[in-house]
Amino acid sequence: MGADNQQERLDTKWISGFVDGEGCFHVGINKMPKMTLRWQVLPELRIVQHKKNIPVLKKIQKIFGYGTIRRNHGDRFELRVRKIENLNKIVKFFDKNPLQTTKRNDFEIFKEIISLINQKQHLTNKGLRKIAELSSKMNRKIKSKYQESSETICPTSKGMKI
Amino acid sequence: MGADNQQERLDTKWISGFVDGEGCFHVGINKMPKMTLRWQVLPELRIVQHKKNIPVLKKIQKIFGYGTIRRNHGDRFELRVRKIENLNKIVKFFDKNPLQTTKRNDFEIFKEIISLINQKQHLTNKGLRKIAELSSKMNRKIKSKYQESSETICPTSKGMKI
Repeated sequence: MGADNQQERLDTKWISGFVDGEGCFHVGINKMPKMTLRWQVLPELRIVQHKKNIPVLKKIQKIFGYGTIRRNHGDRFELRVRKIENLNKIVKFFDKNPLQTTKRNDFEIFKEIISLINQKQHLTNKGLRKIAELSSKMNRKIKSKYQESSETICPTSKGMKI
Repeated sequence: MGADNQQERLDTKWISGFVDGEGCFHVGINKMPKMTLRWQVLPELRIVQHKKNIPVLKKIQKIFGYGTIRRNHGDRFELRVRKIENLNKIVKFFDKNPLQTTKRNDFEIFKEIISLINQKQHLTNKGLRKIAELSSKMNRKIKSKYQESSETICPTSKGMKI
């Protein structure tokens, strides 16, 4: 196989190394007044790159077989995976191609949250609280909007108690 | 092999993906009054990580079989490869495990410079000029100290003409 062809094919281990550097496992918990519990759990994997590297995002998307490429901010674009059925595949992918940095900790928490979502626990108050607690341990430990909300910090009789 | 053992061994393709995200091929051209041409060419590969990821840098160092781990700045540490004999091995490594992002362009220029150094061309004025020109095309295209120097921009009868 020529050098050019070799470059065409992405190795799954290469993707694991690249995501260790550039990927972000994130679980947002966003206010959604129309939803039953008023909070939406939004897990996602994001890989953000300068627009000049869109071809690499496309190659990763092709290997995964799913994910959306869209503008992130300014010159930056992202490959984003959000659908739960695809996130289940992401979990399998990184179980098979393990991350090596401390991002592995984020992934392990992410995996636990995905498992809770599979069990529909994000639709219960108890499950939502558990997910918020787990997600607060991810990334830079910034408190989620959910945890910072006066609704959840200082629940009143009118507010949602969870 | 258990999951733990799998995590112990770094795949070379994982390293390629990680360096595509986190590595930096750099060629410094620094003023060195004591050297014959007064300029020292300093090619290096650097992988900078937060100190919490020093174990990963050590794993890469182990696979490479060379490189130095040292503090970069504050909480950040780097694995650095500088010796020419090791940089020749680095070139072979990334020829075999190709980078996929635009960092590949940097690597190709880096490779050309390493080849010029192997031919001792960095010890000639012509070679030094060629290396400076090549290195200016790397990374963010910041002009090297060498190119910005009034000695080289505005050579006088007292200055070095190259």
